[in-house]
Amino acid sequence: MHGQLRVAIAGAGMVARVHADAVRRAGARLVGVSASTPERGKAAAAELGAERAYDTSEDLVVSDEVDIVHICTPNGLHHPLAELALRAGKHVVCEKPLATSAAQAAELTRLAAEQRVVAAVPFVYRYHPMAAEARARVRSGALGAVHLLHGHYLQDWLADPADSNWRVDPVVGGPSRAFADIGSHWCDLAEWITGHRITELVASTATVHGERSAAMSGTFSAPAAGGAGDRQAVTTEAVTTEDAAHLLFRTDRGATGSLLVSQVSPGRKNRLWLEVDAADASVTFDQENPETLLLGRRASTEVLSRDAALLAPDAARLSTVPPGHPLGYQDCFAAFVRDVHDAVRGGEVRHPGFADAARTAALTDAVLDSAHTRSWTEVPA
Amino acid sequence: MHGQLRVAIAGAGMVARVHADAVRRAGARLVGVSASTPERGKAAAAELGAERAYDTSEDLVVSDEVDIVHICTPNGLHHPLAELALRAGKHVVCEKPLATSAAQAAELTRLAAEQRVVAAVPFVYRYHPMAAEARARVRSGALGAVHLLHGHYLQDWLADPADSNWRVDPVVGGPSRAFADIGSHWCDLAEWITGHRITELVASTATVHGERSAAMSGTFSAPAAGGAGDRQAVTTEAVTTEDAAHLLFRTDRGATGSLLVSQVSPGRKNRLWLEVDAADASVTFDQENPETLLLGRRASTEVLSRDAALLAPDAARLSTVPPGHPLGYQDCFAAFVRDVHDAVRGGEVRHPGFADAARTAALTDAVLDSAHTRSWTEVPA
Amino acid sequence: MHGQLRVAIAGAGMVARVHADAVRRAGARLVGVSASTPERGKAAAAELGAERAYDTSEDLVVSDEVDIVHICTPNGLHHPLAELALRAGKHVVCEKPLATSAAQAAELTRLAAEQRVVAAVPFVYRYHPMAAEARARVRSGALGAVHLLHGHYLQDWLADPADSNWRVDPVVGGPSRAFADIGSHWCDLAEWITGHRITELVASTATVHGERSAAMSGTFSAPAAGGAGDRQAVTTEAVTTEDAAHLLFRTDRGATGSLLVSQVSPGRKNRLWLEVDAADASVTFDQENPETLLLGRRASTEVLSRDAALLAPDAARLSTVPPGHPLGYQDCFAAFVRDVHDAVRGGEVRHPGFADAARTAALTDAVLDSAHTRSWTEVPA
Amino acid sequence: MHGQLRVAIAGAGMVARVHADAVRRAGARLVGVSASTPERGKAAAAELGAERAYDTSEDLVVSDEVDIVHICTPNGLHHPLAELALRAGKHVVCEKPLATSAAQAAELTRLAAEQRVVAAVPFVYRYHPMAAEARARVRSGALGAVHLLHGHYLQDWLADPADSNWRVDPVVGGPSRAFADIGSHWCDLAEWITGHRITELVASTATVHGERSAAMSGTFSAPAAGGAGDRQAVTTEAVTTEDAAHLLFRTDRGATGSLLVSQVSPGRKNRLWLEVDAADASVTFDQENPETLLLGRRASTEVLSRDAALLAPDAARLSTVPPGHPLGYQDCFAAFVRDVHDAVRGGEVRHPGFADAARTAALTDAVLDSAHTRSWTEVPA
Repeated sequence: MHGQLRVAIAGAGMVARVHADAVRRAGARLVGVSASTPERGKAAAAELGAERAYDTSEDLVVSDEVDIVHICTPNGLHHPLAELALRAGKHVVCEKPLATSAAQAAELTRLAAEQRVVAAVPFVYRYHPMAAEARARVRSGALGAVHLLHGHYLQDWLADPADSNWRVDPVVGGPSRAFADIGSHWCDLAEWITGHRITELVASTATVHGERSAAMSGTFSAPAAGGAGDRQAVTTEAVTTEDAAHLLFRTDRGATGSLLVSQVSPGRKNRLWLEVDAADASVTFDQENPETLLLGRRASTEVLSRDAALLAPDAARLSTVPPGHPLGYQDCFAAFVRDVHDAVRGGEVRHPGFADAARTAALTDAVLDSAHTRSWTEVPA
Repeated sequence: MHGQLRVAIAGAGMVARVHADAVRRAGARLVGVSASTPERGKAAAAELGAERAYDTSEDLVVSDEVDIVHICTPNGLHHPLAELALRAGKHVVCEKPLATSAAQAAELTRLAAEQRVVAAVPFVYRYHPMAAEARARVRSGALGAVHLLHGHYLQDWLADPADSNWRVDPVVGGPSRAFADIGSHWCDLAEWITGHRITELVASTATVHGERSAAMSGTFSAPAAGGAGDRQAVTTEAVTTEDAAHLLFRTDRGATGSLLVSQVSPGRKNRLWLEVDAADASVTFDQENPETLLLGRRASTEVLSRDAALLAPDAARLSTVPPGHPLGYQDCFAAFVRDVHDAVRGGEVRHPGFADAARTAALTDAVLDSAHTRSWTEVPA
Repeated sequence: MHGQLRVAIAGAGMVARVHADAVRRAGARLVGVSASTPERGKAAAAELGAERAYDTSEDLVVSDEVDIVHICTPNGLHHPLAELALRAGKHVVCEKPLATSAAQAAELTRLAAEQRVVAAVPFVYRYHPMAAEARARVRSGALGAVHLLHGHYLQDWLADPADSNWRVDPVVGGPSRAFADIGSHWCDLAEWITGHRITELVASTATVHGERSAAMSGTFSAPAAGGAGDRQAVTTEAVTTEDAAHLLFRTDRGATGSLLVSQVSPGRKNRLWLEVDAADASVTFDQENPETLLLGRRASTEVLSRDAALLAPDAARLSTVPPGHPLGYQDCFAAFVRDVHDAVRGGEVRHPGFADAARTAALTDAVLDSAHTRSWTEVPA
Repeated sequence: MHGQLRVAIAGAGMVARVHADAVRRAGARLVGVSASTPERGKAAAAELGAERAYDTSEDLVVSDEVDIVHICTPNGLHHPLAELALRAGKHVVCEKPLATSAAQAAELTRLAAEQRVVAAVPFVYRYHPMAAEARARVRSGALGAVHLLHGHYLQDWLADPADSNWRVDPVVGGPSRAFADIGSHWCDLAEWITGHRITELVASTATVHGERSAAMSGTFSAPAAGGAGDRQAVTTEAVTTEDAAHLLFRTDRGATGSLLVSQVSPGRKNRLWLEVDAADASVTFDQENPETLLLGRRASTEVLSRDAALLAPDAARLSTVPPGHPLGYQDCFAAFVRDVHDAVRGGEVRHPGFADAARTAALTDAVLDSAHTRSWTEVPA
């Protein structure tokens, strides 16, 4: 594919802005955007600087003016829009979860393969250079066999019963909330860094707030601390999706692990924290402090700063500014989109794809199953 | 009991030195000590500054010259020595685990109650002022209901297969190693801080090194990093006790939790880390940084320094030097022994006791059971 | 000015890439670039995705095809190119130091005012939301009078005598190195946050390595640790610019302060660390951990996370992604360029400008004077 | 000297309690204590567990029943009591500052030498194992030449004008407050670790609160945050001693340095923070986190935990419990007193002595001189 790539974004929430910024940084054209109504679409086009608005996401994903479609809608629409786009031969970048069941996610993965298009999912934490460095170190074998894999992913934006969001509603967001939304990121990163695959798990889930405000607020737009407002005026609805999930697991290569995922941990904003305990060293990555990596050894713990001159090639290529000048979330997104565009142009495929998303969908199904049956559950390979 | 208390210590390892120091700081007499042989006992008496040595621990625990007996031997001797001492009417401070089965621990608890003596177990992490502050804050209800309870206790002193210790041998150390030795501390602290009781759990355990050096080295005397020496010359033995244990649990008051305990996490020395996520705030305590407490709220995270003027009474009484002048492990021990001596003199009972140790023994049994049966297991109340 | 703004960049080093990225994110056209030779200019145009290359920076800064000129050359060329651009009526974004003497910097400031163009300097650390929050809190008076102002700015990229760079050469880089290059950032941030102005100072400077490799390496391209290579083959040159500068100072509003600036502090990458001790609270900002702000009070230290819902308006507008999703250096640059473009279009002037750069040039002159005369030196208002 | 050493303590404030605890841990007898009145002396004897009270400190320091005298009175009494004790042939442990002028401190140092007694001053931060490790590493030359020496010592206990203490009054506390009280510790530690001597300095001092409450409160007994109480009822007095001091300095071996000392930095409790930037590595020690040492190198920063197996001999001997079991301030004091007792018994002299205190008194004089004359001032060797 020659010339400037033409990208369109279905959806106009917070993450759509991040996608749009990444597309622009990659040097592509942002040809269009859609939102929940035509009017909102027009507003979004103006805000995001897109060339035009589409009346519907369905129109957008099949438009002849578009090479690559980004799907940034609520979760429930991911599958139908991705299917439409794939059938129209578009390259697709779809927000996770790719679908709200493992079966649908697997089906889309097969369809994308048949269509021979690029089908990417923004597991963007892989694009922190120090996460890539963690992978390179663990995969090289230099740290010895991986014995333990553990950590948590904690947020607080749903800590109050007055907080709500479309993700709380299983029809719109899917049957799993905390695990599907953020646990999936942790598992993707853990498997990607170590090369291990989780083969069985036991989980417990908790719905801390059995009722929540029925007011579906916007993306990540929880009221400020203390500002729950006049709660009596707000009607509430029963909640079935989980606020938190605890997991134990085993991997195909003999490691054991544990994970806590929570959206109700006050003071924790987006704490994805992962430790790999190998025979000779531990490796700790903390997404909120992504510019360093901790390498623990018996004799001392090394704090590695991101410095391209010292990193493994796969990490160094992502290290685009000098050490001490923090790279952040949007830089990850930009690097991810650059990789997607490289792949669209026929280059090496380095980005996370639909198969990775189908993998986390299978894990999500296993978590819900295990929590329901209160027993160890196998995860399909 | 009037006059200076007379204390004797059975055992002469690292922790015996810590006990001896605490006894001296409390103003008591250290009248005697015993070790594995009479000769070692004499050496220990000289080293610890005890007035005399006893030929055997059995002699020591029943001696007429002694008011309070401290049992600091390998785990397998805790139960018989404690029983002897109790039957001789001594006050007893026994290192944990009190016994290597829940049944024996419960039996000792009953015996101590019958004998109407002080029977204490050094769950000394309770004596960090900021741990006591955490308890006061959570128990006051000011933070709201406790929803999640999680953390880990990580060490690395057994990370190498060349590392060994009497604790590895189930005959000497008991059938559980990592959980009984350090997981018990975490659970004691978690239940003590929150007032919740773990009612059921599911666990997986891992014996990372199936064989270890057969050379039983001294307490906490793992070789330095890289210094495993001439491994070929060392014979190895099969290991049955666990290097690590992962737990999920539920409490009597509706919280869910998770815990990882490990003695094979390189770079982690004694990282007991505990987070309580309540409705309005989270509380995080880290034993390696015990002089601060983190109170996470949606709006910000407060870092509380230990300052007697600002702490709850139960924490303030332990805060014996100004803020910024670190209190440490031995200060906890000293405060614990002062509380024991107060109780011996008829004062308020504030120290952790045999019932607390029996509680952790019951948890240990449940962990081993659950790991064996691969299922959720109830913990007796 | 209507339509898409047309931007050109003189210079093709590391920081030029950062400027180019920010220009693209702001939605402007990158019409051209120049480098030290026409060939390098062409390579840079390809690399940066500019529409064309200019043979010389002199051509670029006066080109009719350009609305806004970014000057990213070595320091010695800042003044002549900025003067040319201003006289051609261009809006100018000039890297700091604006000039290598206070007099020349003041002259450019006057010229920019006469030409009524936008004249901006990327003191981009002002664009970290939490730096803006620090300013809002201090300026509001809510923390009480500012008593002490202190900190450091430490790097290590010139720690080895084998490290060199055009900045080491006073002809190319100017007579001050560490202070002009990074101390200027600290002082700009400190004055901007507090509203205080440094009125007198005493300084000592240190040239730790009296000789350095004569090989002028590229921007920020120090050899990796330990990799000084075959030093005998490298000729060395005498160094006159400072590796480090220590300052004491007083402000117009009665505060005292101190600052250490160093490019030879091993392990420190870009540690701009600033503490403001006011009557009721201290405020600490650390550029390497820019997503939090520490508010120290007697009772506790508050760690504020960047959360738009909770920040002052000037900070909230910069907080473009949810808390816990790190913003970084390039995001600051993008926000700075957006502000510059707003000003070019006639909007509010919020960006740091030539007067700010002239201010830091005056401070630089005072530092060199004071170090030379070994005495307190007044800084012109 | 054979048998149990007999120790008496003049003074009964916070630090006297710490001395008493250390004496007891060293296995010595605490034979007596004195306070500002005979009644207070009796109360102190009961509280500290001393065998008896002396009516006056003057009686105590010359008593035949005493081998070693600890002087823990307000500063103004240090010199006369130490002189009395020395003339009576006692071994003396005197709190710093040894005297309120350099001349008097030097005079006591000479007298102690003439009397051939042990004369110690508790610069106890030297007794943190990781401070000793810092010394061993720097002194070994393994890190290369020391270029920069910098840091701060920040407290907040006098941040409010309602805070007062005998130290504020120059007659009781001496003409320098912040520097003499805590700056002296920083300088002692910096010179002790590096072997460099400060040869000249320039200082500015600040008395942030020109008036303070006239109520002389007890040691370290500032009112709690926000609790200044009914200020109108409190009379105030003019303050002449400094709340803060900023220093630049040069050393005899060619390093430059800077230091900020403050007792008015909200949120800072006892932050003695010291960084040594040498050619190949930086070393950072933070007294509030004394169990780790940071070794910064270009390639990474190493976090060393206190582990006797890995430390230099002078540090390992102080590392009395396993890593991860924090040692603290009182453990430093105990090790200091053990060293003093070893010296009294004729062993190696390892403790800081009067000459060290006289050194910091000379530095204090130079700081006050330089601040007064606003010029670089030489420090006598």
